[in-house]
Amino acid sequence: MYDAVVPASRSLSFDPVVAAREVWASKGWEEAALGMATITSIMRAHQLFLAQANDALRPFDLTFARYEVLAWLAWNAECGSMSLSQIGELFQVTPATVTNAIDRLEADDLVRRLPHPDDARSTLAEITARGRRMVATATVELNAKVFETVRLTENEMEALLRLLVKVRVEAGDFSSATENGHVPTPVRARGGGARKS
Amino acid sequence: MYDAVVPASRSLSFDPVVAAREVWASKGWEEAALGMATITSIMRAHQLFLAQANDALRPFDLTFARYEVLAWLAWNAECGSMSLSQIGELFQVTPATVTNAIDRLEADDLVRRLPHPDDARSTLAEITARGRRMVATATVELNAKVFETVRLTENEMEALLRLLVKVRVEAGDFSSATENGHVPTPVRARGGGARKS
Repeated sequence: MYDAVVPASRSLSFDPVVAAREVWASKGWEEAALGMATITSIMRAHQLFLAQANDALRPFDLTFARYEVLAWLAWNAECGSMSLSQIGELFQVTPATVTNAIDRLEADDLVRRLPHPDDARSTLAEITARGRRMVATATVELNAKVFETVRLTENEMEALLRLLVKVRVEAGDFSSATENGHVPTPVRARGGGARKS
Repeated sequence: MYDAVVPASRSLSFDPVVAAREVWASKGWEEAALGMATITSIMRAHQLFLAQANDALRPFDLTFARYEVLAWLAWNAECGSMSLSQIGELFQVTPATVTNAIDRLEADDLVRRLPHPDDARSTLAEITARGRRMVATATVELNAKVFETVRLTENEMEALLRLLVKVRVEAGDFSSATENGHVPTPVRARGGGARKS
């Protein structure tokens, strides 16, 4: 139930992950219990942070999903544009989800669609000047209200990141050749640079 | 973009979290960079596991969200029932999301709605016999295909769990009185037991 999230207005009085782990143990699913607890914990942490991020972004009429697209277009994509299929690959979402997000961003004049210069079947999304201003302002808010409020020490966050990198590589998020912090080449809209010439 | 997920059919050739962290550093957002990386990593790990879980559950015509509701009703809720508002609190989702999930589960004869015996404004969801069979079978599949395949050592998973518990408590997931593994009282539908008398 991770689509529509509400802020954690009321804490539970118990840890549902611990409760589920007890169930798994009692059923004899010992082999799976720790993995279940790990995955469920990741999902609950996700839910909490997503709710915080969406709250912080509400004044900008942005969701975290749309913010992520804007931020990537602004700062990582060459010439501020990427093909819709590249966006789907980057965020591991379906074409329909990308289309919906880009529709909304385009309606708000934060991105515009452009034909791909080298591929007639492909469409680029390019961030607008308004989109660049919006994502810069929204990031200041997100940093202050969410990213700077994680209550772990630097060492704890680095340890968490290392464990999650291992999980993510094994689960196929990215190839492990770059696992150890090598700075990657930004995702490029093939031929995107040519539009400027 | 975490609603509709696709399996990681193709790994990226780089770690987008590392790329984003470089951007934050270059913008002078050092204070927020590590928190951003931590939260983004949790979200990407969530996305990968959610896709795996939904894949494993597709033969049962279940999503992980609906599976979680069924599993909780089957094994943690007293008498196999909870109020819809309790389900929303437990999974931190909106009433509309709970309604949609219960509508679908009810249409599939996996749960039924009952009037709350003590509160006319409240509705209970009760798991059916078919729901209990379904969740047992689906769990065997989830255990084999997802929960037993986390490629971390036991020590790594326990370390990850500890860090995530700290994050979750700070973010308001549950109150820290029970943080250290105390087994909680299951969520009860108030007066739910009375229906049997």
